[in-house]
Amino acid sequence: MPLPETYLQMMSTVSEGAELRMELVEQPMPTPKAGEVLVRVEASPINPSDQGVMFGWASMAECSSTGEGSATVLTAPVSPQGMGVMKARIGQQLPVGNEGAGTVVAAGEGAEALMGKTVAVMGGAMYAEYRCLPAAMCMPLLPEHTAKDGASCFVNPLTALSMLETMRMEGHTALVHTAAASNLGQMLNRICQADGVELVNVVRRPEQAELLRDMGAKYVCDSSSETFQADLTDAVHATGATLAFDATGGGELASKILSAMEAAAARTPGAYSIYGSVAHKQVYLYGGLDVSPTVLSRGYGMAWGVGGWLLPNFLAKAGAEVGERLRTRVVAELKTTFASHYTDEISLVEALQSDVVARYYAKTTGEKFLVCPQKD
Amino acid sequence: MPLPETYLQMMSTVSEGAELRMELVEQPMPTPKAGEVLVRVEASPINPSDQGVMFGWASMAECSSTGEGSATVLTAPVSPQGMGVMKARIGQQLPVGNEGAGTVVAAGEGAEALMGKTVAVMGGAMYAEYRCLPAAMCMPLLPEHTAKDGASCFVNPLTALSMLETMRMEGHTALVHTAAASNLGQMLNRICQADGVELVNVVRRPEQAELLRDMGAKYVCDSSSETFQADLTDAVHATGATLAFDATGGGELASKILSAMEAAAARTPGAYSIYGSVAHKQVYLYGGLDVSPTVLSRGYGMAWGVGGWLLPNFLAKAGAEVGERLRTRVVAELKTTFASHYTDEISLVEALQSDVVARYYAKTTGEKFLVCPQKD
Repeated sequence: MPLPETYLQMMSTVSEGAELRMELVEQPMPTPKAGEVLVRVEASPINPSDQGVMFGWASMAECSSTGEGSATVLTAPVSPQGMGVMKARIGQQLPVGNEGAGTVVAAGEGAEALMGKTVAVMGGAMYAEYRCLPAAMCMPLLPEHTAKDGASCFVNPLTALSMLETMRMEGHTALVHTAAASNLGQMLNRICQADGVELVNVVRRPEQAELLRDMGAKYVCDSSSETFQADLTDAVHATGATLAFDATGGGELASKILSAMEAAAARTPGAYSIYGSVAHKQVYLYGGLDVSPTVLSRGYGMAWGVGGWLLPNFLAKAGAEVGERLRTRVVAELKTTFASHYTDEISLVEALQSDVVARYYAKTTGEKFLVCPQKD
Repeated sequence: MPLPETYLQMMSTVSEGAELRMELVEQPMPTPKAGEVLVRVEASPINPSDQGVMFGWASMAECSSTGEGSATVLTAPVSPQGMGVMKARIGQQLPVGNEGAGTVVAAGEGAEALMGKTVAVMGGAMYAEYRCLPAAMCMPLLPEHTAKDGASCFVNPLTALSMLETMRMEGHTALVHTAAASNLGQMLNRICQADGVELVNVVRRPEQAELLRDMGAKYVCDSSSETFQADLTDAVHATGATLAFDATGGGELASKILSAMEAAAARTPGAYSIYGSVAHKQVYLYGGLDVSPTVLSRGYGMAWGVGGWLLPNFLAKAGAEVGERLRTRVVAELKTTFASHYTDEISLVEALQSDVVARYYAKTTGEKFLVCPQKD
């Protein structure tokens, strides 16, 4: 079957006029050069990190869409504060969609072995009907895998595995995770149980606690409970966790976790000095579900840190060998440990319709959307 | 001259009844064991880090003193929040005073060479008439030095030098310092000028900016100015600073510094990705002049960190050789680079009088108190 002459690709632009604009741009079909392949993209998830690039600091509660079919355009206003933060991207048309999977439909010289294979890709610009990229960036799936199986091979699985790598590299032995009932949080539970690592799960509702306990989680603390701070301190004390990954980012949660770690250290003989507990306590903010400022009370001595954590930055620091080891494990356990579940499958056009945007922008725990660029 | 049979030592206690109590306790005069010396303490500064142990989270605006002479007692109430933070020290009588200098008046076997020498000591429990400790903890001063010259040999000089060591160890090339007109800040300016390191000084008042410019500081930003954020961004851009040491701790200053670093990176081709600037930006909070919560807006990408920084923790991490190198430099430059100036010299008893406490507790920039335990 001959390839079409053009394909559609989703783009996000912040204009000088303080407007976010998302649309489908028609691109000429590329011919793969030596070492490259052309992938027909069949499935690509919407992760929170994708939404960061798609919407940035735009006021999405006020978004609206116009036009129909491939001419659909989504717009949203941007506040002066948002414009300040997004200064570096103003006027640039940015491709979106970090990861996905599909079929290799054309191959350049030296890449012929991938022809017809189902591959997973973390190459950016995946919310598109086609993607041309170096064969080295493709991870071939096993014969029993569909593109949907492999769509979320990278972001969530590698993030969860990299959290454990970070824990080991920085000398911690257990960890705390917030928004723990998420797709990523459930994955992290499966990995920790397999690897024998103690994990403290922080959730926001009783039914999420139940879900995690049903899947074998030993430590679950509900932040909506009146006894949350005491529960968290007990769990941190029992596990010895001095590292946390927080998906919410804003508010007082990071500070509460550090306070619990400090209170747990105060119960442990020798762990405490007049300047506070001696062991370094670290909270990494890897998401921003709560966009309000992070508020730190600082009542936890001097050996603490809070900072941003981003998968590509970690992988660059950890080196190629670590990355390869983690990827190999993902493919081997794709239908078990690293299985993802999707709430809905949407087309490129649907992903620009304001009513659909409102649904996935809500980032409801347990809900995950899959973009299927071949869907009409 | 024979030694007295007892000596006075200042102690700080937080009681179960939510009261801070500071007093002078009579101790039996010790006889140095093998390898130990007895130092008659003649001068010991009051650093902000000393006040952390002396007063902790007590409500010092409500402190009062009773009694006279060596029976003077200072008390202050402690809020429920303060009691929570100080849980681990409740009921413990803590000695205070990190560093100081004096004369060796008795020496155990093997330590005789120090007899009669003027030495600087960082041993804790220095707000006392005498201090018995291992000879290895004493740093002999040069013949031209008095105890007053050597009283502040450790905390400020080693902190300033360790900031530069941290900068080098963590791969930064320039730095930002807040409360820059302080004794420590002026010292840091002298070191940076000598070592050719670019330093951005953040001060709170125009006259402090003038003071620093008069001593040769190239980059001074006044946080009370309307153009502060723009000035800071320009200075960070000019110096390439990606590391800051903040003495204030609370409020939005750390966040403003990170925002300036991010805005500076956005001006630099290649320094910026869609997830924000690529280089790691770090702010260490080494003091708490502002006890309000630290508020982080997080509009600076993912490669950033904020955390506590404490000299003993740094020295333990850096190792003995680094510590030795830094101490050698301090003694060699004690009357120049590392000279300290004192606002007032007070006795142990005066240090417990509420009107005197009010003066040094204010931590006014440029004011520094020296405790002289031999003073009546």
